[in-house]
Amino acid sequence: MIYLDNAATTPVDKEVVKAMDKYHSKFFGNPSSLYKPGRQAKRAVEDARTTVANLLNCDAQEILFTAGGTESDNLAIFGVVNQFLDKAKDYHCITTNIEHPAVLNSFKRLGKLGFDVTYLKSDQYGLISSKDLLRALRPNTLLVSIMYANNEVGTIQPIAEIGKIIKNYRHVQRVDTISKNPSYPIFHTDACQAAPYLDLNIENLGVDLLTLNGSKIYGPKQIGVLFKKKNIKLQPLFYGGSQEEGLRSGTENVPGIVGFAKALELVDKDKQKENKRLLKLRDYFTMELLKIPNSILNGHPEKRLPNNVNVTFKHIEGESIMLKLDQQEIYVSTGSACHSKSLEPSYVILALGQDAANAHGSMRFTFGKDTTKKDLDKTLKVIKKTVSDLRKISAIQT
Amino acid sequence: MIYLDNAATTPVDKEVVKAMDKYHSKFFGNPSSLYKPGRQAKRAVEDARTTVANLLNCDAQEILFTAGGTESDNLAIFGVVNQFLDKAKDYHCITTNIEHPAVLNSFKRLGKLGFDVTYLKSDQYGLISSKDLLRALRPNTLLVSIMYANNEVGTIQPIAEIGKIIKNYRHVQRVDTISKNPSYPIFHTDACQAAPYLDLNIENLGVDLLTLNGSKIYGPKQIGVLFKKKNIKLQPLFYGGSQEEGLRSGTENVPGIVGFAKALELVDKDKQKENKRLLKLRDYFTMELLKIPNSILNGHPEKRLPNNVNVTFKHIEGESIMLKLDQQEIYVSTGSACHSKSLEPSYVILALGQDAANAHGSMRFTFGKDTTKKDLDKTLKVIKKTVSDLRKISAIQT
Repeated sequence: MIYLDNAATTPVDKEVVKAMDKYHSKFFGNPSSLYKPGRQAKRAVEDARTTVANLLNCDAQEILFTAGGTESDNLAIFGVVNQFLDKAKDYHCITTNIEHPAVLNSFKRLGKLGFDVTYLKSDQYGLISSKDLLRALRPNTLLVSIMYANNEVGTIQPIAEIGKIIKNYRHVQRVDTISKNPSYPIFHTDACQAAPYLDLNIENLGVDLLTLNGSKIYGPKQIGVLFKKKNIKLQPLFYGGSQEEGLRSGTENVPGIVGFAKALELVDKDKQKENKRLLKLRDYFTMELLKIPNSILNGHPEKRLPNNVNVTFKHIEGESIMLKLDQQEIYVSTGSACHSKSLEPSYVILALGQDAANAHGSMRFTFGKDTTKKDLDKTLKVIKKTVSDLRKISAIQT
Repeated sequence: MIYLDNAATTPVDKEVVKAMDKYHSKFFGNPSSLYKPGRQAKRAVEDARTTVANLLNCDAQEILFTAGGTESDNLAIFGVVNQFLDKAKDYHCITTNIEHPAVLNSFKRLGKLGFDVTYLKSDQYGLISSKDLLRALRPNTLLVSIMYANNEVGTIQPIAEIGKIIKNYRHVQRVDTISKNPSYPIFHTDACQAAPYLDLNIENLGVDLLTLNGSKIYGPKQIGVLFKKKNIKLQPLFYGGSQEEGLRSGTENVPGIVGFAKALELVDKDKQKENKRLLKLRDYFTMELLKIPNSILNGHPEKRLPNNVNVTFKHIEGESIMLKLDQQEIYVSTGSACHSKSLEPSYVILALGQDAANAHGSMRFTFGKDTTKKDLDKTLKVIKKTVSDLRKISAIQT
């Protein structure tokens, strides 16, 4: 099979499976237990925490393990704002109109809870303007959440630049409760898609909260990380045995945590080499696809992830091509996987200024470490024939 | 090693590890994807859901997969009450003073949010009185959460009887918003500890919401189930791609879900046989421990889980014995694992009317499917010697 949907989920790396293995049935203790198997489990968790912290250039105590990217995003967002729930109307939050549903739907909820929400609009390439952000910031802004790289079109935001703008803004006169606290506005970024390819050095990025997800880095599903800067106070999403400094109650997922650390280590090790390799493949594949008449590249031509190609073939439903590819065991997506069952056109493609028809025609190809030029050539062949066939039928029908 | 702390966590069954294996790297698709690997993953999730539903005698659509028992408990509790957050003071909720921290700390939060909370008090055996519950119910009671079996002392509550009381109470005149809705008070039970041994037939129990946890049934960690009766409306704990009918956003943990279903299947298959075997071991071990002078059995002598023995050796710290056993590779707990790092005496043992000294002296032994009489005899030998030695020292010191 040719799997070109690594933004939806990645296969678990064999080395990750191996690393987790012994923590299922052999070193299976509860990390809260004081006896030897408990201490072993605890050590495995803390070693993994240190590994992740080193890769992010932060302190181990700034790494929280959660049950996935969605939970990390929600913990970041509600963890900040729920402390101001009783005065929601007095506070303001900022995000963008192209965030992953885990962020976007959380902000919609914030709106319902009474918070004032600004949705920054992306330009036609999926880029958020730093100037727009600066204009949107207010003395009562609690939180800014802007994704590192988009899951559908792969556009990379200037996170370090945004981080600096927010940092500078912290000196303005603040309102009410947050007036005495120089940590607002808090800056969160969802780095799930960025993780295998972009710089994750926290100091370079200037973020306060950062989300990672195991299932996008060849790690296990349902394990995530939230980097939380030391001075940031969060309200937990749920209550219990007070694991993870009280911010994520529930017995620690030892195999998942060990697997996550191993996965992040592996993508970090290969980052430079993979970036170079995939960039070449991306540009080749894009060029070939754009030779098809009436095709458009969605997202930014350069400021995009090296593994992402998103195109629209005008007047054709992306789904028709997807199904044809499916028959040939080539797997691609139309819109984000989370939305692929919905008949709604992709809100991200719409946000880029495309009409509904073009959004329906959009197709996402996201490469992974197993992707070869041969895979792409086979895919191109099928696509070219399918588009041509479908357009002939479409021409006859119209 | 002799592992007698299966209430803290169980090793993953080899068959469960095997069942999960192919979903890591081979059938790794995102269940939301429409192509073949996505459909395969989706089918695995839905097959697992049907397996769990059949074992619980409910409909597949009534089974929600979560990231563990703590999350299931929180989703049950906040899922019900968060719909009434703006009028919290008008509503009432009931729980007990011996719940697991996932329930107890959630109810403490409800109190802070303004809800009126009644904590039913257990008797000296850890039993909750149905009469007390009946007296506590009010026309504005939204939710009752009473655990099926206690995690520390193993006492089993009369859940079916409680279910009937609550069902009957639904006919009384209700207040405000809930007046037109005959599903209140909603009845939730945490069945994490009960799962391997007690009846999980939903119709027999009469519950609306029921929590299960993979890590207590020889399944994977960080995977749980919430049974949610069809008519019950819940508010999600977090927002995103709207998986699990919108109640648990986040890419489904396919290996974890498959593993959970297999684990529940296995414990169900062996339930009768294991109950009989462990009951014999439990009563033998209890009898032998109680031969030690100044020892007390904590919890109910009969209405308790077949794998649980909890005793106090007066004038001795449970921890001293635990550490001695640890050196011999015998693993037991003092208080619940979630609390074992705390220096506070177990709140459950205190709730049974014991003083702080006796609570500090309490030790929990929870057997599993690998526990043999030989293991227990070795354990008895070490304990008898340790207690005798410690008491000699203590006698010299005093």
